[in-house]
Amino acid sequence: MSEKLRQLINSITPPDEVAASAASQHLDQLTKPPGSLGKLESLAIQLAGITGVDKPEFNHKTVMVMAADHGVCEEGVSAFPAEVTQQMLYNMLSGGAAINVLARHAGADVKVVDVGVNADVAHPDLVSRKVRMGTSNMAKGPAMLRTEAEQAILAGAEAVAEAFEDGTRLFVTGELGIGNTTASAAVVCALTGLEPEVIVGRGTGVDTAGLARKIAVVCRALDVNQPDGNDALDVLTKVGGLEIAALAGVILGAAAHRCPVVLDGFISGAAALAARALAPASAAYMLASHASDERGHAAVLRQLKLEPMLHLDMRLGEGTGGALSLHLIDAACRIMREMATFADAGVSDGQGAAQR
Amino acid sequence: MSEKLRQLINSITPPDEVAASAASQHLDQLTKPPGSLGKLESLAIQLAGITGVDKPEFNHKTVMVMAADHGVCEEGVSAFPAEVTQQMLYNMLSGGAAINVLARHAGADVKVVDVGVNADVAHPDLVSRKVRMGTSNMAKGPAMLRTEAEQAILAGAEAVAEAFEDGTRLFVTGELGIGNTTASAAVVCALTGLEPEVIVGRGTGVDTAGLARKIAVVCRALDVNQPDGNDALDVLTKVGGLEIAALAGVILGAAAHRCPVVLDGFISGAAALAARALAPASAAYMLASHASDERGHAAVLRQLKLEPMLHLDMRLGEGTGGALSLHLIDAACRIMREMATFADAGVSDGQGAAQR
Repeated sequence: MSEKLRQLINSITPPDEVAASAASQHLDQLTKPPGSLGKLESLAIQLAGITGVDKPEFNHKTVMVMAADHGVCEEGVSAFPAEVTQQMLYNMLSGGAAINVLARHAGADVKVVDVGVNADVAHPDLVSRKVRMGTSNMAKGPAMLRTEAEQAILAGAEAVAEAFEDGTRLFVTGELGIGNTTASAAVVCALTGLEPEVIVGRGTGVDTAGLARKIAVVCRALDVNQPDGNDALDVLTKVGGLEIAALAGVILGAAAHRCPVVLDGFISGAAALAARALAPASAAYMLASHASDERGHAAVLRQLKLEPMLHLDMRLGEGTGGALSLHLIDAACRIMREMATFADAGVSDGQGAAQR
Repeated sequence: MSEKLRQLINSITPPDEVAASAASQHLDQLTKPPGSLGKLESLAIQLAGITGVDKPEFNHKTVMVMAADHGVCEEGVSAFPAEVTQQMLYNMLSGGAAINVLARHAGADVKVVDVGVNADVAHPDLVSRKVRMGTSNMAKGPAMLRTEAEQAILAGAEAVAEAFEDGTRLFVTGELGIGNTTASAAVVCALTGLEPEVIVGRGTGVDTAGLARKIAVVCRALDVNQPDGNDALDVLTKVGGLEIAALAGVILGAAAHRCPVVLDGFISGAAALAARALAPASAAYMLASHASDERGHAAVLRQLKLEPMLHLDMRLGEGTGGALSLHLIDAACRIMREMATFADAGVSDGQGAAQR
């Protein structure tokens, strides 16, 4: 492992228990039955711990979209042709993709980073950190070199560092890459030992025959490459994707900057498993957003011990579920800052007389 | 049934299938795999059908909080004393309650309507439509008179009509009333035939002994009053609440004005079952927001054939879950208006070549 990556991992420390405890105490003084705001309360406590501030506020949020291509597409694992990655990249840079609409709606920025699109792409708003022109076909051999996987992780972490410099204090994981549910499924299986049959899903919408082919391809990739489940770098190298590695870097970078990182769906979940394997302390900085309709996502969230807030049966990716959850995160913060306490409002707290 | 209530019920007509179908066709042209935005897509289609506009927009939304007291509180069914209804009413009118924070966050108004608070309450922002000073104890006899139940329903519908006059085009059901999870449980059991053991929950937070007492009280109320499950007015009269009846009126009023009505949690669900029993066509105007932590809510949503978008383990009421879902409703509308189509963006649609 490079010195740079080791430094990144070592810079991640546990959350601030004092701030978390102050937040928890404040919540119990607000005019509501204790705990009755459910996950909004646990979220407020977690955000306090992450930031070290008992009533944090996130005025600058960014969806980090990592984009790359997948050699495994030549096995016919996607309902869309591989060129759609670059076409959607331009759509996203023009503001027409779903993530643009939902990020605008949430008051968040979208930062698109090319870490491995298989084409010469250029746009004034595109961050170019291309590691290589897409991965190799993992069904035939390793997707990339170990040094390339490290480089992709660091590209994600550096994109976070730049956004942090520009004021971002909360990150959402997003991605773009035709074929990436196949690579993500392989990563999840390699890291967890779960079987491809329960993890591989329909992605952008392959039919039943396509799903069977996809499962067979993931089995073959695992068989051909024999990734070491105890070495996340080896897993990312052999059966990962450049955007998946970069997203692991986004997560590690956010944690290193003591910023919350909102996970989108299945691909983000695969990256989160890799990030946690590299740096267990990063797990405390992760927030789940939605329960994706992609088959393996529920199992990934169980592995991460995270519970999603939104159940919208979405399977679009790009960071869309993450962006939709930002409203809930802001809501938790506003509850902390704006609700009256029992004493303020002269309301009986259920223990006896009014507190005024 | 009064002529006024009959007119209200008869004015509710089915949604506009043409607008719904136009919305559905537009969604399939947007740059995403078909159906991949899940419930956001079904929501967009439903909203088009309700409003008759294929790309609707809701710039003025109001949370309708119906407030009332419950005679059954003398049976010790709540963790909070009955005076908390009036204390929280003033807290809400001062802007310090959770619903104020979450409605502000969603850009929605809060309208508080007194339909039966057991005290002389007054405030410039309070809409006073008091039917009586709280219900009678349903464990000993009917909660109210049949004419009072009708009056409460009409109070809710008239409050909606006034808000519609003022520009509101989307309504959220909210409520305030210590003891109202007990009355709601009785209403649900009477209308569905489900057993109190599976419907009665902890409300604001009674302990295990309190829960057993609450179940016994609901059983007694059903036994003493023998409400007719085929006559929703009889059910509301005998084991309902003034705010539950008023919420049924809010739902009927919204449907009559062809406006969507977002259901909050368990109490709203009980009111929705009553509204649907009175006017089956009203069901098409209902949107579920969150899955409440209150025990009987999941069963109520199954009865209503609605699926919640948010899973936050909340059990606060007031309309808080409904308010949090408004962001998702606005998101669905923005997707319809702002996303690029395959043709616009020159993206391959998975059927073959790019559509440009």
